[in-house]
Amino acid sequence: MREVMVLGVGMTKFGPSDLSLQELFANASLEAIQESNLTSKDIQALVIGNVLGDFAEGQMNLAPLLADEIGLGPNVPATRVEGGCASASVAFRDAFILVASGFYDVVIAGGVEKFTHMGTAQVAGALAMIEDSHYEEFTGLTFPGVFAMLAHQYADKYGIPLAVLKERMARVAVKNHHHGTMNPLAQFQKEITVEKVLNSPMVCDPLQVLDCCPISDGAAAVVLASREIAEKMVAKPIKVLGVGQGNGRPYSRQKDFTVMRARLASSSQAYKMAGIEPRHVDVVELHDCFTIAEIVASECLGLVEFGKGSLAAELGETSLGGRIPINPSGGLKSKGHPVGATGCAQIYEITKQLREECGPRQVDGARIGMTDTLGGTGTVVVNILLGR
Amino acid sequence: MREVMVLGVGMTKFGPSDLSLQELFANASLEAIQESNLTSKDIQALVIGNVLGDFAEGQMNLAPLLADEIGLGPNVPATRVEGGCASASVAFRDAFILVASGFYDVVIAGGVEKFTHMGTAQVAGALAMIEDSHYEEFTGLTFPGVFAMLAHQYADKYGIPLAVLKERMARVAVKNHHHGTMNPLAQFQKEITVEKVLNSPMVCDPLQVLDCCPISDGAAAVVLASREIAEKMVAKPIKVLGVGQGNGRPYSRQKDFTVMRARLASSSQAYKMAGIEPRHVDVVELHDCFTIAEIVASECLGLVEFGKGSLAAELGETSLGGRIPINPSGGLKSKGHPVGATGCAQIYEITKQLREECGPRQVDGARIGMTDTLGGTGTVVVNILLGR
Repeated sequence: MREVMVLGVGMTKFGPSDLSLQELFANASLEAIQESNLTSKDIQALVIGNVLGDFAEGQMNLAPLLADEIGLGPNVPATRVEGGCASASVAFRDAFILVASGFYDVVIAGGVEKFTHMGTAQVAGALAMIEDSHYEEFTGLTFPGVFAMLAHQYADKYGIPLAVLKERMARVAVKNHHHGTMNPLAQFQKEITVEKVLNSPMVCDPLQVLDCCPISDGAAAVVLASREIAEKMVAKPIKVLGVGQGNGRPYSRQKDFTVMRARLASSSQAYKMAGIEPRHVDVVELHDCFTIAEIVASECLGLVEFGKGSLAAELGETSLGGRIPINPSGGLKSKGHPVGATGCAQIYEITKQLREECGPRQVDGARIGMTDTLGGTGTVVVNILLGR
Repeated sequence: MREVMVLGVGMTKFGPSDLSLQELFANASLEAIQESNLTSKDIQALVIGNVLGDFAEGQMNLAPLLADEIGLGPNVPATRVEGGCASASVAFRDAFILVASGFYDVVIAGGVEKFTHMGTAQVAGALAMIEDSHYEEFTGLTFPGVFAMLAHQYADKYGIPLAVLKERMARVAVKNHHHGTMNPLAQFQKEITVEKVLNSPMVCDPLQVLDCCPISDGAAAVVLASREIAEKMVAKPIKVLGVGQGNGRPYSRQKDFTVMRARLASSSQAYKMAGIEPRHVDVVELHDCFTIAEIVASECLGLVEFGKGSLAAELGETSLGGRIPINPSGGLKSKGHPVGATGCAQIYEITKQLREECGPRQVDGARIGMTDTLGGTGTVVVNILLGR
């Protein structure tokens, strides 16, 4: 297995967009290719994450259309992968394997989603299909419901009064919104307060609307290549230190959803491949689809002690300037969550952080960064470790 | 890159089924694992093709649920790929790369589909999403329409009177139905006649209903491993000689649909990797979603001269016992076409042929076999070459 580097990254602004899937992807991918000092002719394979193309735009079999849109030729395999909200990270990991194995020298991974034009009920129904249709979705359970139950279970397990947990959860939202104000590509670029979160409309007890990430349109893309090519083409290639992909039983078959089996497996794989421990990580982009989701992820990745995730948020440990800054981009909560694109948007942020190109939201001296993307009710997690 | 072998294959009977996606896949995959003299604990990664899980059963993010169904553990990455009707072949090729690269030693690839319970209009609408939604699907064009236009273009290009072409196309259907009578897993196991085809209801001129493959439920699975493991575990491992995946512009952007760019690219890749030429191939399973589709595929793969595909069918060159037997399983036309499963069902047949386990439909002395799977309006083709 040879070393693989990230050369260039590209990303659209997240949020409602009038552009098509093809146009969104083209904008992100051509930026990534240009940043790599390459042209479309240099790309040897494409792996793309997309979840709702069929429901939102009547478009399946999207990958070859995206390849055509950016001028990739007939010998460039173009594959769509779908692992719910983790789709783009699955794509990145597959692209990593294609280069690490020597099958290809230059591969583009990406993700794209467009669904803000759908009605709320349509979106809720479509996203619920990422659950287990036989044991979860048919009950009417939506994702806010899943994570609301998780919050109750978490409070109960660790003996944290719900009111205390709610305020700490609110601090996660406030932090990520604050980070988002420094990210020109974020969907929301405005501060919120704990009070505002706690007084926002209830979605599913104890989650209020400001505990939840929005739905978003957007795309992100990453060009990966061998070290040899990377060092020739760009000044600051970022090394892929480790990758992991784990799977878990759906929520309805888990006793304790506060510790996700898929995440333990995935992060262990990534740490092991990289030969590092959680304490070596300087900056993290993780799956904060809901505020409680950030708390349990920070614990499961080994960044914070089990049961202490909400306290760490309250103490500012996970804020910019804190011990382990989480979601400096604003995260799903504030940057936005175009589901099939999120994983590569996380890679985008970590790459920019490791290149020290993040301006006011820069994590000083970050040398090792991590991404974490969750799909389904705990059924798939992908972790990527990057370093410089 | 190390050698990769097919150890075991499994497949359900194709046709309407009361089983769920999970149950169908479990039946096929556990058969493949058992045939490999392995257990689920030995499987290190899963790649699955599925197209309509969301529309047909409200199930996205299917891969980890299938992994759970057959007892795969948390460290076994489970990924869904979707490339329209070529999905399972995309899965097989990805699995091949995972083993060839040394990332994993034992990987299962498969495909599963269940949609016969959907209404005809629902199915037509859902499958049309595999086209280009912006330039094709919105016009009301369905796949029978695409291939009907192809038939007209083919007749015109080669100066074959339409009545002559129609009779030759009918012979493709008669042949594949005849082959299907010898396949206990085929959806249709009954003979038809040229007269019956020509008098069957018109679907889209010149395609009559017996020129079209059916819709089907079903699953197929293949266990791949390194040569070292394969030779230890099974008596007749089948070697993967070459793989190819090409992409093409959608139908609406092609001048000549009778020669598909994606197929030329894909088959060239596979032949080159295998170091063989079309004349070395003994048996072929190819994408006969419509009778005319078999004709153009046989030409594009280099098995028959361009413009002579329909004549070759008339002369029996592509029948069992002919020069180059095509679709001894009955093909999509008679065996059935559970879209996301078809590619691995083709691998199933070729593996059984090369092991000489096909009874009355055995191609005598077959040593090299090929599969061909098409997705979209010519936008993705995957070819696999297997040998013993």
